[in-house]
Amino acid sequence: MKEIRIGLVGAGWMGKAHSSALLDAQMLFGPEYGTAVFEMVADTNEASAKEAQSKIGFKRMTTDWKELVSDPKVDLVDIATPNAFHYEVAKEALNNGKHVYCEKPLSISAEQSKELAELAKKKKVINYVGFNNTMNPANAYVRDLVQSGKLGKIMRFTGTYDQDQLLDETLPITWRHINKLAGCGALGDLGSHLLSVSQFIMGDISMVNAMSTTIFPKRPKAPGSSEMADVENEDIITFMTKYENGAIGNISASRVATGRKNYLAYEIQGTKGSVCYDLERMGEVHVYFHSDDEADRGFRTVLLNPKHKGYSAFQPAGGISIAYNDMKILEVHELFAAITQGEAYACDFEFGYKIDRTVDAVLESARKNEWVEVK
Amino acid sequence: MKEIRIGLVGAGWMGKAHSSALLDAQMLFGPEYGTAVFEMVADTNEASAKEAQSKIGFKRMTTDWKELVSDPKVDLVDIATPNAFHYEVAKEALNNGKHVYCEKPLSISAEQSKELAELAKKKKVINYVGFNNTMNPANAYVRDLVQSGKLGKIMRFTGTYDQDQLLDETLPITWRHINKLAGCGALGDLGSHLLSVSQFIMGDISMVNAMSTTIFPKRPKAPGSSEMADVENEDIITFMTKYENGAIGNISASRVATGRKNYLAYEIQGTKGSVCYDLERMGEVHVYFHSDDEADRGFRTVLLNPKHKGYSAFQPAGGISIAYNDMKILEVHELFAAITQGEAYACDFEFGYKIDRTVDAVLESARKNEWVEVK
Amino acid sequence: MKEIRIGLVGAGWMGKAHSSALLDAQMLFGPEYGTAVFEMVADTNEASAKEAQSKIGFKRMTTDWKELVSDPKVDLVDIATPNAFHYEVAKEALNNGKHVYCEKPLSISAEQSKELAELAKKKKVINYVGFNNTMNPANAYVRDLVQSGKLGKIMRFTGTYDQDQLLDETLPITWRHINKLAGCGALGDLGSHLLSVSQFIMGDISMVNAMSTTIFPKRPKAPGSSEMADVENEDIITFMTKYENGAIGNISASRVATGRKNYLAYEIQGTKGSVCYDLERMGEVHVYFHSDDEADRGFRTVLLNPKHKGYSAFQPAGGISIAYNDMKILEVHELFAAITQGEAYACDFEFGYKIDRTVDAVLESARKNEWVEVK
Amino acid sequence: MKEIRIGLVGAGWMGKAHSSALLDAQMLFGPEYGTAVFEMVADTNEASAKEAQSKIGFKRMTTDWKELVSDPKVDLVDIATPNAFHYEVAKEALNNGKHVYCEKPLSISAEQSKELAELAKKKKVINYVGFNNTMNPANAYVRDLVQSGKLGKIMRFTGTYDQDQLLDETLPITWRHINKLAGCGALGDLGSHLLSVSQFIMGDISMVNAMSTTIFPKRPKAPGSSEMADVENEDIITFMTKYENGAIGNISASRVATGRKNYLAYEIQGTKGSVCYDLERMGEVHVYFHSDDEADRGFRTVLLNPKHKGYSAFQPAGGISIAYNDMKILEVHELFAAITQGEAYACDFEFGYKIDRTVDAVLESARKNEWVEVK
Repeated sequence: MKEIRIGLVGAGWMGKAHSSALLDAQMLFGPEYGTAVFEMVADTNEASAKEAQSKIGFKRMTTDWKELVSDPKVDLVDIATPNAFHYEVAKEALNNGKHVYCEKPLSISAEQSKELAELAKKKKVINYVGFNNTMNPANAYVRDLVQSGKLGKIMRFTGTYDQDQLLDETLPITWRHINKLAGCGALGDLGSHLLSVSQFIMGDISMVNAMSTTIFPKRPKAPGSSEMADVENEDIITFMTKYENGAIGNISASRVATGRKNYLAYEIQGTKGSVCYDLERMGEVHVYFHSDDEADRGFRTVLLNPKHKGYSAFQPAGGISIAYNDMKILEVHELFAAITQGEAYACDFEFGYKIDRTVDAVLESARKNEWVEVK
Repeated sequence: MKEIRIGLVGAGWMGKAHSSALLDAQMLFGPEYGTAVFEMVADTNEASAKEAQSKIGFKRMTTDWKELVSDPKVDLVDIATPNAFHYEVAKEALNNGKHVYCEKPLSISAEQSKELAELAKKKKVINYVGFNNTMNPANAYVRDLVQSGKLGKIMRFTGTYDQDQLLDETLPITWRHINKLAGCGALGDLGSHLLSVSQFIMGDISMVNAMSTTIFPKRPKAPGSSEMADVENEDIITFMTKYENGAIGNISASRVATGRKNYLAYEIQGTKGSVCYDLERMGEVHVYFHSDDEADRGFRTVLLNPKHKGYSAFQPAGGISIAYNDMKILEVHELFAAITQGEAYACDFEFGYKIDRTVDAVLESARKNEWVEVK
Repeated sequence: MKEIRIGLVGAGWMGKAHSSALLDAQMLFGPEYGTAVFEMVADTNEASAKEAQSKIGFKRMTTDWKELVSDPKVDLVDIATPNAFHYEVAKEALNNGKHVYCEKPLSISAEQSKELAELAKKKKVINYVGFNNTMNPANAYVRDLVQSGKLGKIMRFTGTYDQDQLLDETLPITWRHINKLAGCGALGDLGSHLLSVSQFIMGDISMVNAMSTTIFPKRPKAPGSSEMADVENEDIITFMTKYENGAIGNISASRVATGRKNYLAYEIQGTKGSVCYDLERMGEVHVYFHSDDEADRGFRTVLLNPKHKGYSAFQPAGGISIAYNDMKILEVHELFAAITQGEAYACDFEFGYKIDRTVDAVLESARKNEWVEVK
Repeated sequence: MKEIRIGLVGAGWMGKAHSSALLDAQMLFGPEYGTAVFEMVADTNEASAKEAQSKIGFKRMTTDWKELVSDPKVDLVDIATPNAFHYEVAKEALNNGKHVYCEKPLSISAEQSKELAELAKKKKVINYVGFNNTMNPANAYVRDLVQSGKLGKIMRFTGTYDQDQLLDETLPITWRHINKLAGCGALGDLGSHLLSVSQFIMGDISMVNAMSTTIFPKRPKAPGSSEMADVENEDIITFMTKYENGAIGNISASRVATGRKNYLAYEIQGTKGSVCYDLERMGEVHVYFHSDDEADRGFRTVLLNPKHKGYSAFQPAGGISIAYNDMKILEVHELFAAITQGEAYACDFEFGYKIDRTVDAVLESARKNEWVEVK
C-alpha cells in the first residue's frame, strides 16, 4: 500500500474537485492503487490556501508554489491553477523530478506544450493531463467500436461542444475573454474537450480549415458597468478536418449556443456502422450496425453498463446514472494506477501537446482563412 | 379489370375521406384490384348529398339510404354515418346481399355487433370494419415480431390513446358526450382504436377490470352559453386486462390528456424482446432484442421501410414519412383486394364484434367496480 | 460544529454506500451540518464487520447489534441490514432514544411500520427512511410543479418501475423471492420506490385494485442446479389507484421487463399542464404547459439545473449529469440537517408507514381480485 | 373555375408523382384554384409515354417534347425529365410563353440557371422550381420563427442531409455518378434540398469553403459485373458558409451515411432562441426560447398543427402524421394558386438560380481548397 504525497498548486474549485475525486477513487478502488496523502497546498491567495488546508486536510500550506514543487516530501504535483500558469509550474515540477498531474489544457500554446512533453519524456515521470472526457465510459465504448473495426472504415466525424453560459451580453469580461490568460475562446475552453475525445477515438488530425466569430465583441468591465472592454477571442469556432486515418470531419464549439447546456455531441460514420453521442444524455450511446436485418435495423440506444470500461466502478447494473464528476474519479484512479502499478494511460503530455498543436493550427487557419497543416 | 360500384351512406368528412382513399389506392396499386365506380351517395341532408355528388362525382344521390342499400347497381355499401346508425344501415345492406364497408366502430353495442357479425357470415359477403390503425406498417411489423416468436413469450401489454382535444371546458356538448349517440366516451372514440391494435397483435382479451372518470361533468349547451348540459360518459378510462395468451395488460384512453395530441402509444414486453410504439412518431418503432451482445444492446429505433407491410406502396426507401391518411388508403386497398381477389383480411365484422364486446365488458366493469369476463 | 456518532448495523454494500455518502455530503455541504464520527459497526458476520471497520474507519465493531443500539456513544443508528431485520433493530434503537436512519423499506409489513412510526413520534427523535428517489432534483421539481398549481387540477398519474435484472430464468432463487425475507416481489423491491415518488408528489392513495403475475414460478436452488425452488412472489405487479386529491392512477413494476434497466418512469396529467420523467434519463424532465402559444407548444425537455432543489450541490450550471448515488448524498445531508439544524424532512417513519400500508393494500387486492381501501 | 392544360415532359416516376399530387391538391383545395387538364405527355420512350397517357389520362402523347412545348393547347409545361435536360426544355417552353413547373434542380449549372431565370422574368410567366422541402409546414414554421425575430439575431446554421442508399459498394454505377448527367454528387442530389431550406429560411449565402470525398471511387458497370467504372463525383460534401445576415454555417450531405435514411437535419441558433429539425421525424420541431423561466426552460417538442402553414390542408388537429408526399401536394397547390390567383411563391427560377450558383461555388471551393464567393 503505497502512499502518494500530493502537492496541490491552486486551491480553487478545481483543486477541491481533484482532491475530492482522489478520496472517492480510494473508496471505490481500494488502497492497492495507492493512498493519497495531502502533503501541501500552494496558492498565491493565502486565505484560499488556508481554507483548502483545513477543508481537505493538507499538512502544510504555502503561498509560493516554487517551494511546493521542490519540496522533497511531494511525490505528485497536482496543477489546478488558471490555464496561463500551467506551463511554468509543470516545467519546474518536472525539473524537480516530480510526477505531474496537470488539469487541461496542458498550456496555452503548442510551443509550451511541446517543450513540456519533451521534458516529461526525458524525466521519465508520470505526466498526466486531465482530459476527463476520455474517461467517460461512453467514449471508451465508442473508441472500442471504432478501433475494433466494428464500424468499418471510418468516413466522417461530426462534433460540437455547445453551451450557452456566456449568452447573456450583460455578463462582464473575464479571464476567458483575454488571450494572454486563456489562449483563445470557445476553442480552448470547450473545443479542446471535444478535440481530446476526437484524438482519443479517431487519432491524429492532419489538416484544418477554420472560421470563427465573436457575437459579443464587447462586454462590461464589471457587472452593471457601462464601461466596456474588448472580448479578444471567439464565441464560436467551426472547422473542417482531415484525419490521418482518411476520414474527414467537422468540429465546432460555441459558448453562446442558446439552449445548449453541456452539449458535447458527436457522430461517427463508418462503412459498417455509425455511432452518436451527446453528453447531455451522458448515459446513452446510439449505435447502428449495417449488418442487422433490414426490417429490424436502427440506431440502438445503448445504456451504459458494466461492459463499458469504467462504469462498473460506480454501479453493478446498467442504466443507472453516473455523474460528470465520476469521469474525474476515473481519471485520478488511472493516474494512481500509472504511478503505483505502471499501468498505461492515454492522456500524457504528448497527448496534451497534440491537442494544443491542433488548437494552434485551428487558430492560424481562422486567421489566415485557409487550410493549415497540423504539424 | 372489375368495376366495383360504390354506394356511400353519409356524405360528411369521413365519406369524403373514404372516397379520396379509393382514388389514391387505385393510383398506387393499379386497376387490377378493381376500379371504384361512384354509383350513388345517400345523406339525409340533401345539400350534403348533392355536394358530395358533384365533388366526388357520384352518378346519383338520394336522401333515403334505404333506397341506396337495395339498389341493384350498388355492389358495396360504404357506411360513413354517425356511429349510432351503423347498425341499421349495415343490417339492411347485408340483407340485400351487398358487400359492406363500415367505418369503425361496427355499432354502439356488443349485442348489435354480434348480430351483424352473424348475419355477415351467413350472407357470405365481404364485411369490413375500418379499423385503420391495423393497416399501419408499424403495427403490422410489431404483429410479425410478436407472432413469429421473436419477442418470446409475451408477458405484458401497456398502452394508452391520449389526446387533449376536449381539454378546454368551454367547448360545448356534442354527440360524443351523449351515450345514445356515441355509446360511450374516450373508450369508444379513442380506446377502441387501441383495442383494435391490441386485438390485431395480441389476440383476445379474456378479463377486464376498469375505472373511469369524467373530469368535466358538464359542458355548455352551445358555444358561449351559460346553460349547461350533462356529459354522460367518461373523459378518461383505464383498465387492467388478462389476455388469452397469458399476458397481462393495462389499457387507457383520455380525451383530456394535456399535451398529448395523437398519442396512441404502447409497449409489449416478451421474454426475448420488447417493442414500443407511439403514433405521434408514426414512422419509428423501438425494438429490443435480449439476444444482442450486452455491450451493444439497446432499444433500436427502426424507421419504417419497405420490409414493413404496406410501406412500399408509398415510398421506395426507408425513413420517409408516410401519413396517417395512408392507413386509410391501405385499408380500402385491402377491401378491394378482398372483393376482387378473394384475399384475406383481418378486420371483418367478427373482429369488430370482438372489439365491441370488449368495450361492453370494460363499461360493465367500470360500473360494477369488479373484474368482468369478456364473453 | 456538532459531531454525530454513527452506529451502523449491517456492513454490506448498502452500509458502505451510506458511509460513503456521509463523507461526500460533508465535503459538499461543509461541517456546519454536523460531522460524522464512525463510532461503531455491527454485523453478525464478523469478517464483514471487521472489513467495514478498517475500510470506513469505525472505531469499534461488534457482532451483536443489540450492543450497538444501546451504546451511549452512539447518536444515530444507521440500519442497512436485510429488510426483514429493519423492524427489530429500529424498535430497539428507538427504545434506546437513538436517532434512526433506516434504509427503505421501513419494515416488511404495514403493521410493523405503523408500530415504528408511533414509537418514533413518541420518542421525538429523528426517524428517517432512505427513500432516496424523493431526493432526486427531478422529483423535487415535479413536486413543485404539482403543488404550486402550475399543472392545474391533477387528473392522472401513470407510472412504472421496470428492470430486467431477473429476466434470466437460470438465475437461482434469492432472498428476494422468499416472502418472509422480502415481504413481496417486484412491488416491494421496485414498486415501493415508485410509491415513494407518488406519495411525495401526489399525496395519499385511498384505494387500489391490483393484479400480479409470476413469469418464472420456479428457479434453481443454486447456480446451475437442476433442483428447483418455488418463487413465492410476483415478477410483475400492476394496480389502479384512486388518490385523495381526486386523481386516478396506474402503477406497475416489473423485475423481468426486457430491455428496461432502471426505468422508473411516470407521467402526470393536470388540467393546465403535464409532466413526464424517466430515471434512465435522470437529468431531464419533460413538461408541457397548456398556456403556451399553440404554434409553439410542446413538451419541454428541461435539463436539471441549479433552479431545481439539490442540483446545485453538485454542479454550478445546468445540463451536467449527476449520479444516482448523488440522491443518497442529498439524503444523508437532509438527515444531518434535521439532526443538527432541526430542518424539516419528508421521509419520516410516518411516510415509510404510508408506503407500507399501500403495499399491503396492493397485495391484499391482488389476492382478493377486488378494490381495497388503503387504511 | 379555370382549366389549366398540363403538358408533362418526362413520363417516369416523378412525372407520375406530379400528376398524382395535382389530383390530390384538387380534392383538398377545391376547384377554385384551377382544374388540371391532362392535355399531353411527352417521353422519348414511347412505351412510357403511352403508359402514362393511359394511367393518368392524358389526352395526347408524343415522343417529341418540342412538339409539346409549342402546342397551343398547353398552358403549363411540367418538366420531370432527368436533370440534364431541364435546361433546354425549360428554355424552349419559356420561349413559347408557357408557364413552367420544373422539378428541382433548375439545371445542372449556375450559368444555365441564370439564363433561365432571366428569360422567365422577361416572359412574365409563372416559373416554379419544385423544391418541395420549402413546402414542409415544419420549415414554414421555422422560417416564421427566424423572420419574426423570435429567435433574435441568428448566429449559426448547422445542417446535413444524410442518406445511406449508396452505401453498398456492389451497387453499380448510375447517372448519379456521372457529372454530365448529374452535375455533381451528394451535393446536387441531397445537398441542394438542404440549400433550398437554408435559402428559404436564412436567405443568401455569400461565401463558402468546401471539402468533399468519394468513399467508393469505382463501382461495377452493371450489377454483379467485375468491370468497374469511375465514380466522378462526391459521396460526401461538407462546407462552411457565411450568410448575408451575418450568421455562419456548416452544411453537409452524404449519400453513404450509414444508418441515416432521410436525415435532413438542421439547427439554427439565435441570440433569443434556437430551433432543431430532422426530416426523419417530420412531424416535430424542437424550439427553445431563452426567455422562458430558467426552471422550466428546455427545447419544446412542437408537434405540427394547424397553426403551421400548410398542415391544415391535411388534418384538422395537431400531432397527426403527414407524409413526405404531402409537400408535393402543397407545392402544386401553390403553383396553381400562382397561376389562377396571382399569389406569391418563393421558389421561382431566381430562387433556383440562387441554389445553383451556391452549388457551383461549393464545387469550385472543393476543387481549389479555398474560400469562394457566391456571386
